[in-house]
Amino acid sequence: MTREILPADPSTPEIVSDPQAIRAAVVAARAAGRRVGFVPTMGALHAGHASLAARAGTECDDVVVSIFVNPTQFGAGEDFDRYPRRLADDCRLLGHEGVRWVFAPESRTIYPPGDATRILVDGPARRFEGLIRPGHFEGVATVVCRLFNAVPADVAYFGAKDWQQTVVVRRMVEDLGLPIGISICPTIREPDGLALSSRNAYLSPAERQQAVGLHESLLVAEQLWRNQEPVDSIEAAMRAAIEARQIRLDYAALVDPVSLEPLDVAGGPAVALVAGRLGSTRLIDNRLLAARG
Amino acid sequence: MTREILPADPSTPEIVSDPQAIRAAVVAARAAGRRVGFVPTMGALHAGHASLAARAGTECDDVVVSIFVNPTQFGAGEDFDRYPRRLADDCRLLGHEGVRWVFAPESRTIYPPGDATRILVDGPARRFEGLIRPGHFEGVATVVCRLFNAVPADVAYFGAKDWQQTVVVRRMVEDLGLPIGISICPTIREPDGLALSSRNAYLSPAERQQAVGLHESLLVAEQLWRNQEPVDSIEAAMRAAIEARQIRLDYAALVDPVSLEPLDVAGGPAVALVAGRLGSTRLIDNRLLAARG
Repeated sequence: MTREILPADPSTPEIVSDPQAIRAAVVAARAAGRRVGFVPTMGALHAGHASLAARAGTECDDVVVSIFVNPTQFGAGEDFDRYPRRLADDCRLLGHEGVRWVFAPESRTIYPPGDATRILVDGPARRFEGLIRPGHFEGVATVVCRLFNAVPADVAYFGAKDWQQTVVVRRMVEDLGLPIGISICPTIREPDGLALSSRNAYLSPAERQQAVGLHESLLVAEQLWRNQEPVDSIEAAMRAAIEARQIRLDYAALVDPVSLEPLDVAGGPAVALVAGRLGSTRLIDNRLLAARG
Repeated sequence: MTREILPADPSTPEIVSDPQAIRAAVVAARAAGRRVGFVPTMGALHAGHASLAARAGTECDDVVVSIFVNPTQFGAGEDFDRYPRRLADDCRLLGHEGVRWVFAPESRTIYPPGDATRILVDGPARRFEGLIRPGHFEGVATVVCRLFNAVPADVAYFGAKDWQQTVVVRRMVEDLGLPIGISICPTIREPDGLALSSRNAYLSPAERQQAVGLHESLLVAEQLWRNQEPVDSIEAAMRAAIEARQIRLDYAALVDPVSLEPLDVAGGPAVALVAGRLGSTRLIDNRLLAARG
């Protein structure tokens, strides 16, 4: 059987597992004048990821999507083992978005034998998810830095749904002087407002109904924010909206969108951050609130 | 006065302070097919640094030397404030070595406002200098990563005199997948064996005489190693040689050259590491010992 008999489907991304091979491909593309976009993911792709790949496709000549379930960002007892893995489905979805390369490394190439290096981001990484998931953002910063070295793209795309993650990644990129642009793209939602997340698959039908409470709390926050209500009252109303759906509250806060510290200017801009649990599933969501007059 | 009247001396390196400018220059040189070498330093250059620049010059088309006294690798009470700074002299020396660019950044461009990111290297960074100078290697790893992003050279040159530093840098480069080669170059010594160091300038004439004790201890170690003496005896003899010169001993150890852990194979190879103090001056030295039969 010769190669000519089975030409590659032009809509099928090329799967690359070797970091040096994907790096060489990206370097060559850029040397040829092509703009390269990068979407780092943990797989189990949904329409939110597809929107990132689509945005990258409109802005770049070539798009790389990485699929790597990063062990260092999961804590003990979290869902690393059961996190959904479905590479074939993921590649099909990415083929529809015109993605050129899927970078699916093995763990031992991202964390080589004797690995002893971690990247710590203080400040915004210490709050919210950083308190509830110790070591999570250390794992995120460490893997994103390694992925950026393997995929030296012009720009990387992240979803706004993980707002604190975008803050931590942008902080790291500025501090280390990493030569890559960061583009934050809008959260994609179900018709009832639930933010798309690979973890939504864990929800029972009843929990799926309750889960909309997170988004409801953000709509409440936005309305009260526009009505010039004080931050304390808004946070109380967010908590009430979440608990009205029997979601176990982790936090509901209105903070500065960059520092994630309490607002020092009452007029904002602000970000409303929420997190809660349904059964063994943790969900997070957020909404940016424009400065109010 | 026009530019033409004062042409740049071809042996004078161009001083660049902006990280983005030096990055653009290095990227352009490499895109034009030139091999670029990089020598990171803290200035106060001596013949050891010159030998690194000279080696880079023989192996590369263009050489960048950075001069940056990195605050994060000095502990409280160490010599950050009195560390010698003499940029004009340094540039003259580097001109003789044909260095093309001196990258001399301001601290606020290496550590931008709000900086919150640090790189931690565990394992080999925990021992010896890491114990005596807490946070030192965190500062070294952090600044070297940032310098490598500003100066994306083909290869970076480090002196073997700071052996543990070379181990930590190589560990970080492998772990993060940084796209740069690391070349370790021999220690340059005074005629009596004292390793060149910018800190030798702190020594009084009497201390300068005593300082040779570190090198003497390494020669003792090498002789006993060749004589098949056990590690314990060799370390005891090293300590005795150092203390015979009234140097206050920090450590004298024979360990694995890569892990810096105790030798698990008695035959080596090994590295002898020594550190001690004369007055307020700390000095370190080392010697690689080839595997013995």
